[in-house]
Amino acid sequence: MNKQLLLSKRPVGLPDENTWTMTETEIPSISDGQILVKNHYISLDPAMRGWMNDAKSYIPPVQIGEVMRAGSVGEVVESKNDAFQVGDFVTGWGGVQQYSVDDGKSMYKVDPSLAPLPTYIGTLGMPGMTAYFGIIREGQIKEGDTVLVSGGAGAVGSVVGQIAKIKGCRVIGIAGGPDKCKYMTETLGFDGAIDYKNENVHAGIKRECPKGIDVYFDNVGGDILDAALARINRGARIVICGAISQYNNKEAVQGPKNYLSLLVNRASMKGMVVMDYAKDYGMAAHEMGTWMAQGKLKSREDIYEGIENFRETFLRLFSGEKMGKLVLKVIED
Amino acid sequence: MNKQLLLSKRPVGLPDENTWTMTETEIPSISDGQILVKNHYISLDPAMRGWMNDAKSYIPPVQIGEVMRAGSVGEVVESKNDAFQVGDFVTGWGGVQQYSVDDGKSMYKVDPSLAPLPTYIGTLGMPGMTAYFGIIREGQIKEGDTVLVSGGAGAVGSVVGQIAKIKGCRVIGIAGGPDKCKYMTETLGFDGAIDYKNENVHAGIKRECPKGIDVYFDNVGGDILDAALARINRGARIVICGAISQYNNKEAVQGPKNYLSLLVNRASMKGMVVMDYAKDYGMAAHEMGTWMAQGKLKSREDIYEGIENFRETFLRLFSGEKMGKLVLKVIED
Repeated sequence: MNKQLLLSKRPVGLPDENTWTMTETEIPSISDGQILVKNHYISLDPAMRGWMNDAKSYIPPVQIGEVMRAGSVGEVVESKNDAFQVGDFVTGWGGVQQYSVDDGKSMYKVDPSLAPLPTYIGTLGMPGMTAYFGIIREGQIKEGDTVLVSGGAGAVGSVVGQIAKIKGCRVIGIAGGPDKCKYMTETLGFDGAIDYKNENVHAGIKRECPKGIDVYFDNVGGDILDAALARINRGARIVICGAISQYNNKEAVQGPKNYLSLLVNRASMKGMVVMDYAKDYGMAAHEMGTWMAQGKLKSREDIYEGIENFRETFLRLFSGEKMGKLVLKVIED
Repeated sequence: MNKQLLLSKRPVGLPDENTWTMTETEIPSISDGQILVKNHYISLDPAMRGWMNDAKSYIPPVQIGEVMRAGSVGEVVESKNDAFQVGDFVTGWGGVQQYSVDDGKSMYKVDPSLAPLPTYIGTLGMPGMTAYFGIIREGQIKEGDTVLVSGGAGAVGSVVGQIAKIKGCRVIGIAGGPDKCKYMTETLGFDGAIDYKNENVHAGIKRECPKGIDVYFDNVGGDILDAALARINRGARIVICGAISQYNNKEAVQGPKNYLSLLVNRASMKGMVVMDYAKDYGMAAHEMGTWMAQGKLKSREDIYEGIENFRETFLRLFSGEKMGKLVLKVIED
């Protein structure tokens, strides 16, 4: 049988017990050209919250009654497509379900001998790609820049900071709690950390970025974005990757009241969506895989188990109770 | 005697009768290398409000007791500098006073036979330069773009829109009241107008920009910036030139709550300061002068008289009771 999680009600604020419904259906049969994939792991990302809103965005919303959209990595268990064999491992948009069918066009093969499967939906998957293209192409980092990243211990931010270090920048991460701050400085090699749960972020930025901020990579929005705006340098680049502090708002999003700092400092604020770089994913994965093999880029996944535990695991994204990339194992190997 | 307006008290909100003090001093004598300029006209610009705040910005604040900073155009009445002769006309930062002394390094000669003196502090001065570099360099307009400009009947916005028309864009202006809207469409040749005082700006943008907005040139901030953000196209450029709706706030600036539209649309928001383009002013003035001579670029100044009337004239910037470039004649010819 195939356990699936369907979107049953659009949430207002944080998803609750009425948001999704678990169903169990027959494992689907496949037609010519298709593959059947057993999804081992699914990816839990803040962006998923946005896909649940009935609003125009960079991707259509998940419809009521549809399987909840999610990135996934799994194993081909049946194939009527010459490009895939049973036993191949693939990543794609499998959704929050144990088995999915694909025409082979939106699933990509991965090699589990090179990296653990969860890494393919983490540092070598969408979050890693977001970090890579966001900080290099949009952030336009150069040696000596001071780079500030919020969500610095998370799936995207941890990679942003490490890439900026590889490129010769001074890197400061913002995260919640001493464990995450220690992780950023001691494990990831960041130059400094700001614990937004236990210190004033304005004061923290002043202390850790005495020469101001050249690039701010924003995953959180809200007050932290304003604190960063207050200390950007002339010509600074702000990359808007996300705004996790605002995704569960019941009221309007909090706009950055310090946005006129962009004028004073001739700075830019630019939004990005990782899908735009799809044609270069292979190149980026190769470069990041090399950095991982060299020990320059560390990947950490926080793995939970059981498709039944999807909601409580998903909520860890917003409570901050996780470290690194959040992953859910949805079926036994 | 030289009438001067000194900053006497930093305003909270709109300047009031305690903000400036008029004084009268001897006409200054000059030393070797200096010139004495009789300031005929001074420029009144929204940015002046920002210069009065004791805050880090792109230019130091005017100090208490100092002559209020202002752009000016006037006549050399005494010269101990070989580069200038009595009778030359010059533009620069003369301040709100009838006579000023300069070392000749920050005053530039202008030719009153080519354009009326007030135009040199308007379309051929800072506001025109702001428009030119803002819409061409930062807005990166190209033929066929839909360009929206707020403050579209003002000193900067009217030039922004006309340049965008010259470059083959569809241009929509936002301004307050039917007279300004008529001015934009009938005199300046804009393709459409939105009257923010008499209609819903969201609805107006939807009507006038059916294909969305490619470039938004923002002079006003606040709700209008949010309305524009809600209808930008993919890859749109927002040029932050000013935020006149926020300059007299007693509370925090209103941040753009729709800023995540930048993410959805992979759009950018960039601040600009005209001084950065100083080395290319000559080129721009030449090109704009040519457009004026060809009748493609119209310039309009709203001229008031009497240095004593500075404050009430200045307040017209914020009440909207003026059309085109606001200028004050501060002395008899």
